[in-house]
Amino acid sequence: MATVSFTLTVRYAETDAQGIAHHSSYLIWFEEGRSEYLRQKQFPYSRMEELGYIVVVAEAELKYRAPAFYEDRVTVETTLERAKNYLLEFRYRARNQKGELLAEGRTLHVVLGSERKPTSLPADIVALLDAGKEGE
Amino acid sequence: MATVSFTLTVRYAETDAQGIAHHSSYLIWFEEGRSEYLRQKQFPYSRMEELGYIVVVAEAELKYRAPAFYEDRVTVETTLERAKNYLLEFRYRARNQKGELLAEGRTLHVVLGSERKPTSLPADIVALLDAGKEGE
Amino acid sequence: MATVSFTLTVRYAETDAQGIAHHSSYLIWFEEGRSEYLRQKQFPYSRMEELGYIVVVAEAELKYRAPAFYEDRVTVETTLERAKNYLLEFRYRARNQKGELLAEGRTLHVVLGSERKPTSLPADIVALLDAGKEGE
Amino acid sequence: MATVSFTLTVRYAETDAQGIAHHSSYLIWFEEGRSEYLRQKQFPYSRMEELGYIVVVAEAELKYRAPAFYEDRVTVETTLERAKNYLLEFRYRARNQKGELLAEGRTLHVVLGSERKPTSLPADIVALLDAGKEGE
Repeated sequence: MATVSFTLTVRYAETDAQGIAHHSSYLIWFEEGRSEYLRQKQFPYSRMEELGYIVVVAEAELKYRAPAFYEDRVTVETTLERAKNYLLEFRYRARNQKGELLAEGRTLHVVLGSERKPTSLPADIVALLDAGKEGE
Repeated sequence: MATVSFTLTVRYAETDAQGIAHHSSYLIWFEEGRSEYLRQKQFPYSRMEELGYIVVVAEAELKYRAPAFYEDRVTVETTLERAKNYLLEFRYRARNQKGELLAEGRTLHVVLGSERKPTSLPADIVALLDAGKEGE
Repeated sequence: MATVSFTLTVRYAETDAQGIAHHSSYLIWFEEGRSEYLRQKQFPYSRMEELGYIVVVAEAELKYRAPAFYEDRVTVETTLERAKNYLLEFRYRARNQKGELLAEGRTLHVVLGSERKPTSLPADIVALLDAGKEGE
Repeated sequence: MATVSFTLTVRYAETDAQGIAHHSSYLIWFEEGRSEYLRQKQFPYSRMEELGYIVVVAEAELKYRAPAFYEDRVTVETTLERAKNYLLEFRYRARNQKGELLAEGRTLHVVLGSERKPTSLPADIVALLDAGKEGE
């Protein structure tokens, strides 16, 4: 259960007429959390696609705790909860520059191989992704 | 428990490098489902804001069943599950032009009044929103 | 020089903290104007891609005249200005429900064929796209 | 004519079915270029809004030179070309990690004050924004 963090700045285009970051932005930030997770584990998603795997989103859950504003510095912590058979599950926490929890979430993913059939990742790739102790 | 439907065409900008509508698009489509729901109940969200209410998203859940492609005609069915005290809960189903279920979801909302405090909607507004039998 | 119109409703997610539709939304709306143009000319963009053509954006110009707000009904008029060799040029006007001009724009596109090289569309396809008098 | 740079990583959500960053992404990146410019000049846009100014986009021009892909590192150089009366004009260049030019652009902005009327920025703010030699 490794955790990887990255920080982004809320874009003006991400705000809505309520003056806060639109709630759909968090799904995009969490996706970048996964991207960063995979890059730090030396297995960027682009390489996964090169090897013929596609990872699709099967489920997403979000709990919104506090609003984020334009120019806020948001740190997304991404944890790989599960990498078993053809399933990947991630958890996320987003905090602002004051450390306030903005949102939490979870996504479940299915790994697809040739002909878009659910396919288990090879054990060596799972080991790379799961290399927890060195995490962050 | 009234249900309201509307249909959209998947935009090119909504697709991603997997060739399908990005999974964050559904949160935006569901939001438009709520917008359409409120408009059909004669209580558009813009009027809610005029009256001093802000409705924020507290939770969102999505289950993705099948991909949507550019130019697909997607019908979003939006159901008001709950309108009680300061909480609103909606459920959604998105189907393509063949009737295939693309995604299901649920969002929970908190109604805020002055100073962004949770505030119950007046009974007459709840009655409008909940006017189920005439739905659709 | 055929012109095709379609109407959209401004989404909440398209607004920004200024309370108006974000200026990048117009590029997306104009793209859907092109999509609708091609569909009405019986040559949807998805079919173009099936035939091995990719149409990329080379230039875009926008002039913003008045803001659009959440729930505004925006009508986009799309005109094919030029379809010559491997170039396509479109012009756009976006108006709200009161007929006010919101924005005008122009995009220039290059048609790519195999190996992403600029490639002229066959004369019969150009004739389809350019079938002006029957426009709209 | 000061220039300020910042670097972003192309998000998966920013790609489209052509496998490249959607052309509307550049308007959002250029906007963040302006945000970064103003922050580096000690006058973040949020402070401008606090002082009662709204800066709206009047014109935008983009020339697309080469595609950007998921995970590309894109550096946006933002130059303030003009800060005169109620007009601000910026120019942009976006390059990838190999130094290839991806896109160039220009935006023209109008500063609005109370009642959304065009209003000149005070000379001391213009001096701050224009403080060129120290740029970057």
